[in-house]
Amino acid sequence: MKIMNLSTKSRSEMLDITALVQKSVAENKINKGICVVFVPHTTAAVTINENADPDVPFDILASLEKIIPFHAQYRHAEGNSAAHAKAALLGASQVIPVENGRLVLGTWQAVFFCEFDGPRSRKIFISTIAED
Amino acid sequence: MKIMNLSTKSRSEMLDITALVQKSVAENKINKGICVVFVPHTTAAVTINENADPDVPFDILASLEKIIPFHAQYRHAEGNSAAHAKAALLGASQVIPVENGRLVLGTWQAVFFCEFDGPRSRKIFISTIAED
Amino acid sequence: MKIMNLSTKSRSEMLDITALVQKSVAENKINKGICVVFVPHTTAAVTINENADPDVPFDILASLEKIIPFHAQYRHAEGNSAAHAKAALLGASQVIPVENGRLVLGTWQAVFFCEFDGPRSRKIFISTIAED
Repeated sequence: MKIMNLSTKSRSEMLDITALVQKSVAENKINKGICVVFVPHTTAAVTINENADPDVPFDILASLEKIIPFHAQYRHAEGNSAAHAKAALLGASQVIPVENGRLVLGTWQAVFFCEFDGPRSRKIFISTIAED
Repeated sequence: MKIMNLSTKSRSEMLDITALVQKSVAENKINKGICVVFVPHTTAAVTINENADPDVPFDILASLEKIIPFHAQYRHAEGNSAAHAKAALLGASQVIPVENGRLVLGTWQAVFFCEFDGPRSRKIFISTIAED
Repeated sequence: MKIMNLSTKSRSEMLDITALVQKSVAENKINKGICVVFVPHTTAAVTINENADPDVPFDILASLEKIIPFHAQYRHAEGNSAAHAKAALLGASQVIPVENGRLVLGTWQAVFFCEFDGPRSRKIFISTIAED
């Protein structure tokens, strides 16, 4: 398992980590199997979506903010309940097939670290499992 | 990893792919482990839910449409931002336990390919990892 | 694969199952790899979030109820369509890295069984896959 460090710059942000994950998979020298990207935080998530047009992540973040507004009636005193709920909706991990030592993603797919309570220093864990 | 082709018929649709996934797992001859179903698209997803009553997928799609309407204020010029956001909410993969060469699903569970920007020709990737 | 039994006490509830999952991983004696927690139900889910402050799961459940209300216009005659939709949003599985025979979770992360149509008797399936 590899641990990678990230820095986010905004409260809400989708950061393209595809190259970072790909690099880690290549270093692990597995031929085929799966790669698990895991976010060890409770106000951040990982998702897979399009990064050709930056308006796509913008619209995803805006849609999430519309359904789970940052400012609303919440009990949790830290004021970041919306970030916890968004993290639950998108999920703490993504599983991606690996072939010939590379992630097998669709043409338009990118792996995004999703920050919902930034800016912060964050980590991701990357595990690769061989299919053997 | 196997690649399967699908055709969707509507803009929004949940297509039961349980038998297709089961067939792929059986052909892989692993005894026990996990099966990963991965969708290489950014406006489609994969989920697990009930297919005994077709009103269940109908209500799930209607609930998603209510929270992320297809027609709303989005920046992305292709007009399918809702489909990208729904795909992010449901996720690009599902992981299912395998025992005795078969998916271990609950009584009411079916695996669904979720189309959010159809009709289109689509693919799914199926990986099986032995528990050793 | 281990099968664990749970009892939920409310219609909506997030039950911390971290210790249960950790125990199962420890018994499996894998050194490193991944653990898959799978929920074989269609009105329940599994998620990872904070359990230090019980207001966090409270706010997550309240946010979900706000976007997918239990009482609304649904077709499915059993009256639990909201539970099916919430289960689809949070997902039937979580994948967690394992190192030295232990789950590698972030400081604030706990694994939660999410009941959306309780109280009921429920099961979870736990698979561990070695990285070898």
